[in-house]
Amino acid sequence: MEQKFIPDIVVGRLPLYLRALQRMAQQGRKVTSSQELGEWLGISAAQIRKDLSQFGEFGKQGTGYNIEYLVENLCQILKVDRVWDVAVIGAGDIGSALARYQGLSDRGFRVTIVFDSDPHKIGTQVGPFTVQDSANMVETIQQAGVQVAMLAVPAAQAQFVTDELVKAGVKAILNYAPLNLNVPEGIWVQYTDPVTHLQRMTYYLD
Amino acid sequence: MEQKFIPDIVVGRLPLYLRALQRMAQQGRKVTSSQELGEWLGISAAQIRKDLSQFGEFGKQGTGYNIEYLVENLCQILKVDRVWDVAVIGAGDIGSALARYQGLSDRGFRVTIVFDSDPHKIGTQVGPFTVQDSANMVETIQQAGVQVAMLAVPAAQAQFVTDELVKAGVKAILNYAPLNLNVPEGIWVQYTDPVTHLQRMTYYLD
Repeated sequence: MEQKFIPDIVVGRLPLYLRALQRMAQQGRKVTSSQELGEWLGISAAQIRKDLSQFGEFGKQGTGYNIEYLVENLCQILKVDRVWDVAVIGAGDIGSALARYQGLSDRGFRVTIVFDSDPHKIGTQVGPFTVQDSANMVETIQQAGVQVAMLAVPAAQAQFVTDELVKAGVKAILNYAPLNLNVPEGIWVQYTDPVTHLQRMTYYLD
Repeated sequence: MEQKFIPDIVVGRLPLYLRALQRMAQQGRKVTSSQELGEWLGISAAQIRKDLSQFGEFGKQGTGYNIEYLVENLCQILKVDRVWDVAVIGAGDIGSALARYQGLSDRGFRVTIVFDSDPHKIGTQVGPFTVQDSANMVETIQQAGVQVAMLAVPAAQAQFVTDELVKAGVKAILNYAPLNLNVPEGIWVQYTDPVTHLQRMTYYLD
């Protein structure tokens, strides 16, 4: 595929398209339209057509999108036509929920290792994982070649752990700690903080 | 405050500003600048000034922002100068982690009730909460006047439960199930799905 610059906001919508299309496929559906996708997602049909057209010609005027074909292509574009190993850092409530979460494996990811620094947690079982000592994190992640991490440590430790993850070769961090992280060029961070989502909604309430 | 239309994308950045400013305040800081905030957040100083200027005059050329004053105003704008009761629906791994999460209470929210439909979970203890039978959800939420819910049920049940929440008078739903929800006008939904975040990053990896 030709390498052209795609705004990150467009990239950010592709996983939503993929998720909706995979759900349609599960329901036995074969074909959809930008109109229908738009209704599912609350995004305009024109926006969807414009976004997808940046990556190729996936639909035909009048016949719509072949769901299976589009799913295949979006998986390739988002590089989830493979399975990424994921390290979970922090075996508290959120980290444990993530380590046990069943919804990753058919969408391109699998947790392979869980770390914590708390002596009471190291060696305990979280789902199928024995919690590893984070003192060995850099070496272990490096050797395993893990590039993706979910960070579920207290805010006070998050930047330090992030620096360690970067040293270990991690390139993508999903951060559950409620603060922004500093990372060098070429490292990707996404944030998920329930409170920022809630506050974005209470703005509209009375 | 005069009611003018503010794009939701701007509203969505306010909780990030608030979070960073509260963190600065915790560190004993009194004053900051749009430049410094921008560096913390990876957002341009110009964008921050523009966003904030939609709501009033919070900074002075050369002296920057008074952190306490700006925090107070952002809390008012986002309506977290009060505490919102929150219902957690689903007492699985994620719901339980949310019910026990300590990071809500000083940011405008407190979980007050947890529901599940599983007879094995109803009546059990999750943190300080006894799990309630979701068969009584509509009535209970209505009586309590809860307007905010975190939805952590399996995807197959999410739309049904959402319809029930809307009936019960819930106005804002943070959805952890990996699918889009249909809601009537005036109901707000935010989504948090770890996989869409992860896929947005793997796009950039090799």
